[in-house]
Amino acid sequence: MARAWHLKSRPEAMPAPENFELREFEQTQMGHGMIRVANQWLSVDPYMRGRMRDVKSYVPPFAIDAPLEGGAIGEVVESNAEGFAVGDMVQHGAGWRDEAVVNAAEAQKLPDLGIPVQSFLGFLGMPGMTAYFGLLDVASAKEGDIVFVSGAAGAVGSTVIQIAKAKGMTAIGSAGGQEKCDWVKSLGADAVIDYKAEGELMPKLMKAAPNGIDVYFDNVGGEHLDAAFAVANPGARFAECGMISGYNSTEPMEFRYIMNIIGKGLNVRGFIVTQFMDRMGEFHADMGAMLQAGKLTSQETVHEGLESQVDAFIGLFTGGNTGKMLVKV
Amino acid sequence: MARAWHLKSRPEAMPAPENFELREFEQTQMGHGMIRVANQWLSVDPYMRGRMRDVKSYVPPFAIDAPLEGGAIGEVVESNAEGFAVGDMVQHGAGWRDEAVVNAAEAQKLPDLGIPVQSFLGFLGMPGMTAYFGLLDVASAKEGDIVFVSGAAGAVGSTVIQIAKAKGMTAIGSAGGQEKCDWVKSLGADAVIDYKAEGELMPKLMKAAPNGIDVYFDNVGGEHLDAAFAVANPGARFAECGMISGYNSTEPMEFRYIMNIIGKGLNVRGFIVTQFMDRMGEFHADMGAMLQAGKLTSQETVHEGLESQVDAFIGLFTGGNTGKMLVKV
Repeated sequence: MARAWHLKSRPEAMPAPENFELREFEQTQMGHGMIRVANQWLSVDPYMRGRMRDVKSYVPPFAIDAPLEGGAIGEVVESNAEGFAVGDMVQHGAGWRDEAVVNAAEAQKLPDLGIPVQSFLGFLGMPGMTAYFGLLDVASAKEGDIVFVSGAAGAVGSTVIQIAKAKGMTAIGSAGGQEKCDWVKSLGADAVIDYKAEGELMPKLMKAAPNGIDVYFDNVGGEHLDAAFAVANPGARFAECGMISGYNSTEPMEFRYIMNIIGKGLNVRGFIVTQFMDRMGEFHADMGAMLQAGKLTSQETVHEGLESQVDAFIGLFTGGNTGKMLVKV
Repeated sequence: MARAWHLKSRPEAMPAPENFELREFEQTQMGHGMIRVANQWLSVDPYMRGRMRDVKSYVPPFAIDAPLEGGAIGEVVESNAEGFAVGDMVQHGAGWRDEAVVNAAEAQKLPDLGIPVQSFLGFLGMPGMTAYFGLLDVASAKEGDIVFVSGAAGAVGSTVIQIAKAKGMTAIGSAGGQEKCDWVKSLGADAVIDYKAEGELMPKLMKAAPNGIDVYFDNVGGEHLDAAFAVANPGARFAECGMISGYNSTEPMEFRYIMNIIGKGLNVRGFIVTQFMDRMGEFHADMGAMLQAGKLTSQETVHEGLESQVDAFIGLFTGGNTGKMLVKV
């Protein structure tokens, strides 16, 4: 019998183990066009927090007492679908479980690029596309720009840093703790701010970016976003990708420098990666070239076993990951 | 001897009469190319508050113990400049005073359009251009859009309402008090919210805009901006023109719905009207046509006498004006 994490109750603030339960569940029938997948890698992403709220959003909320969902990679162990054979490696959306029966039309067979399959959940997958189109399209970042990236040790942020450097920009990152900062620096960042170190963020950012910033890639919101408003150059572009600092808060976010949007003529744009799905080819081509040129490094934080997924998920909000957070089933 | 309002000290929060002093001052010399203007109309604008702070911004701060400046209209009483004759009506930037000596190259002779000259400080001047380009260019508002405008009884907001209606949009305004709301309604607004009436703003906006909003023209910031984040439709565009609710506050602004920027893919753009100066002809042509078609109504709140300018200025922040705030010297 397959097991899946179910949402028992909606977290009010920080998610806790009590909000989740690992249960056996009735698998979808193996109808025509279906495949059964033994999951090997489960994705753990900040956006999942939003789906635990009962509000209308760009993805429907998770239902109480139903299995959770998310990105996953696994091996086909039974196939009723043309073009899918036992042994194929696929990516699909039925994560948070050890085995999934999914519609093959909604699964992608993974090409063999000679890189670990879990990369398709990371810098070759949604986080990578988010970094790529957020930086180059939403924020229109170009050679010579000074780019500030929060959450720079995360799956998205660390990719933004590397794309920025590969494209001739100055990259300034922010991360929590010396170890993560060192790693971000090793990716080529020109400066890294440890937001957990003593002192307020804004003066640290002013010091790291004495000539201001032209682009802010926001994964964090809150104090980081406010500091970016403070040091932004006229006409700076903000790609609003995430505001993880607010995902578990019931308090409003506070801004002292938001009025700079007007005086500096800032352009603040939110986006969801799904709007760029039709440009996946462009992304794979350019990222592939950067990979082959040795310009991309990925890092993963791996939790072992389906049992560990809730811990991994909570860890996203407590600084538990460097690079992409994954569960190895 | 000419008199001008001088900035005695920088207001910390709400400006008070003690921050200002009406003093005689040494007039600039009447060198070549200069004109002497007897001011008749002085502009009173929210942006002036920003110049009273000692911070780098898009306009330099006012200096302590120096005359204040601002838009003004008056009659040439002495001319050392080619093309300017005694009796000409001109617009220039040396307001807050009864008489000004200015470089004619920085003054504009007013065309005779058969409308009151002070209109060039209002809906045919900077506030009108701000409304026009903010709505149509910054927010890319187009026929069929649902537009929400805060500060709708102000010089800029009331013009936004009228341009929106003239261009086939749904216009929802917000203003303080029944009288102002009635006036905004009379301009053609489809719905008007009294933000001073009992109850929170957000539910009022949801009721006034049951199908959400496609465009928000922000003059106010704070709670209004947060409510706009809450009810915005996916892909909505925000033109950030002013945040008057924060101009006199030392507290941060609080937002509960700012994360909607991401999930709804909002585009939030700040702007300063000066960036559109090279398109003044386009503005005059289109506004002129709307004027002749009877689609524009202006209203003024006029304070009499140079002595009243500080009261008029403080009145901007206490709801003292409907339409354009002016001082008649």
